[in-house]
Amino acid sequence: MSLINRQIVLASRPSAEPSADNFKLVEAPVAPLQDGEVLVRNHFLSLDPYMRGRMNDGKSYAQPQPLDEVMIGGTVGEVVESRNDFFKPGEKVVGMGGWQEYQRVGAHQRGALQKVDTTHVPLSAYLGAVGMPGVTAWYGLVKIINPKAGETVVVSAASGAVGGAVGQLAKARGCRVVGIAGGPDKCAQVVSELGFDACIDYKQHADVKSLSKALKEACPNGIDGYFENVGGMILDAVMLRCNAFSRIAFCGMISGYNGAPIPLTNPSLILVNRMKLEGFIVSEHMEVWPEALKELGGMVATGKLKYRETVAQGIAAAPEAFLGLLKGKNFGKQLVKLV
Amino acid sequence: MSLINRQIVLASRPSAEPSADNFKLVEAPVAPLQDGEVLVRNHFLSLDPYMRGRMNDGKSYAQPQPLDEVMIGGTVGEVVESRNDFFKPGEKVVGMGGWQEYQRVGAHQRGALQKVDTTHVPLSAYLGAVGMPGVTAWYGLVKIINPKAGETVVVSAASGAVGGAVGQLAKARGCRVVGIAGGPDKCAQVVSELGFDACIDYKQHADVKSLSKALKEACPNGIDGYFENVGGMILDAVMLRCNAFSRIAFCGMISGYNGAPIPLTNPSLILVNRMKLEGFIVSEHMEVWPEALKELGGMVATGKLKYRETVAQGIAAAPEAFLGLLKGKNFGKQLVKLV
Repeated sequence: MSLINRQIVLASRPSAEPSADNFKLVEAPVAPLQDGEVLVRNHFLSLDPYMRGRMNDGKSYAQPQPLDEVMIGGTVGEVVESRNDFFKPGEKVVGMGGWQEYQRVGAHQRGALQKVDTTHVPLSAYLGAVGMPGVTAWYGLVKIINPKAGETVVVSAASGAVGGAVGQLAKARGCRVVGIAGGPDKCAQVVSELGFDACIDYKQHADVKSLSKALKEACPNGIDGYFENVGGMILDAVMLRCNAFSRIAFCGMISGYNGAPIPLTNPSLILVNRMKLEGFIVSEHMEVWPEALKELGGMVATGKLKYRETVAQGIAAAPEAFLGLLKGKNFGKQLVKLV
Repeated sequence: MSLINRQIVLASRPSAEPSADNFKLVEAPVAPLQDGEVLVRNHFLSLDPYMRGRMNDGKSYAQPQPLDEVMIGGTVGEVVESRNDFFKPGEKVVGMGGWQEYQRVGAHQRGALQKVDTTHVPLSAYLGAVGMPGVTAWYGLVKIINPKAGETVVVSAASGAVGGAVGQLAKARGCRVVGIAGGPDKCAQVVSELGFDACIDYKQHADVKSLSKALKEACPNGIDGYFENVGGMILDAVMLRCNAFSRIAFCGMISGYNGAPIPLTNPSLILVNRMKLEGFIVSEHMEVWPEALKELGGMVATGKLKYRETVAQGIAAAPEAFLGLLKGKNFGKQLVKLV
């Protein structure tokens, strides 16, 4: 084969806000397969906020993305060539193919690819509602917030792939669900399309006091569970409305990804309200994936779990699409379509 | 009877740091008992940091202490007169008698007094290691931190009634235990008398960086569990040394009791290290008291749980002793001896 694989590598680390200069498009020929290997053509690349953390060199929960190597990332695609008995050309698979058009998987990495059934669930959904973002939503909501019917659950980045699923899973459990998102369009869609009870536009609120007042109106019985994707001022405002025995699942703190830590203003509320705050990373809880994917897949297949996708075209568009994601330009799952 | 009961009432609320002016000593005659009533002479009054919170009028987990009423507080004493078949003169009891010399308990309040056995456990210990502070230590350590043998547990206010018990309970579970206390004398005693592996004098450390460095030396394998009694700079420094999957039990945040909230500098560590932070109030977990008191009582009776007491003399000394407690002048349990 003389296939050319176009790839995006990390060219440099950002000192604060990342830019397109941090990435570089390179081309590499795809070498012939060895025994046991599989070649996958990636159809969609997933862009996710966690990737911002990998661009830094500092201590975090994951190894930094190495410089001059293909950016990591989830992918769905199709087996185009196989020298492995388990995989046949034409089969659809989900994996961690990275920011590139083709992915070669070795004989001893069989677990790196999972076959998926696209009869009732679209291929791209395996990167969103029926993939890592969906399971992330499920874990934080079910295992940490663990809401009871009648409780109020708030989620930030409500129009994102994770936030949208959190709200719909909470609605399915009989909760009042209030989103926080940026801009009137997103907020309107979170309510009308995703079925949230209310959605607050944080851009309409300049400070904690104003946002906290809006939360009080949207959550007349206070807040019992909060799914945290952003941190900063939004976290402070939510904490002021949290009830006794409320739970916060820390999934992301995107507001602090570019620099100095953003303090939590009033930690004494943890004590006063006997709160539980817990951080998690979904990849460390593989034991829940089957249960979570069963619920998520069933809801998507039956139209009970709605989701949106924002799709960039072609591998070269990945860096700008990623920078847009960090600024909240997407609605729902940010994907790059490669085929 | 013509007994005179001397009492301390809350005369005014502090605007910031409380002072002796906030309290007033009053005298009231003890009226004759009605059918079913019990009169207890309080031998010891317990002084505890939570009382500072009750002096404020703001929202907290408990009702504010009403003005011009007897300050609430735990007491141990002796039944001196009884018109209730369940109690006999001479019996020792623990209760919430408040800052006063005598306590009248009504016919329908039988649960307000618990008889205690002073054969192997001194009466005053029922206000400390075998009382609310001991159970507080037990709950936070066992139910929230839940340490495994070999893990490192840190506790602030280590020379206090709660902190001292936390460390010894953790040592009994095979942990490395590091205290934080104020001043070289307290630190030396925490190690030599209470058996901690190390104790850091926070007064020797002007900032987070310095304290964090000391913690690194004392906790070469990082921190797996932290029992929080103070908040502020100490919390920030501990969080910098917390391991993945570490747990923080929020029992008190005495550094913020007098005024503005003290921020937690780097909440993103909750996510990065997948931490769990949980606040609790021991009186909301009465179901654990029997199990906790059994372990604590057994350890005190057999000399395995050491404790110190700082004892003020006479009801009139209570306000100054309480103000001293808030400034860390006590070592171990702060009591007022009334008999």
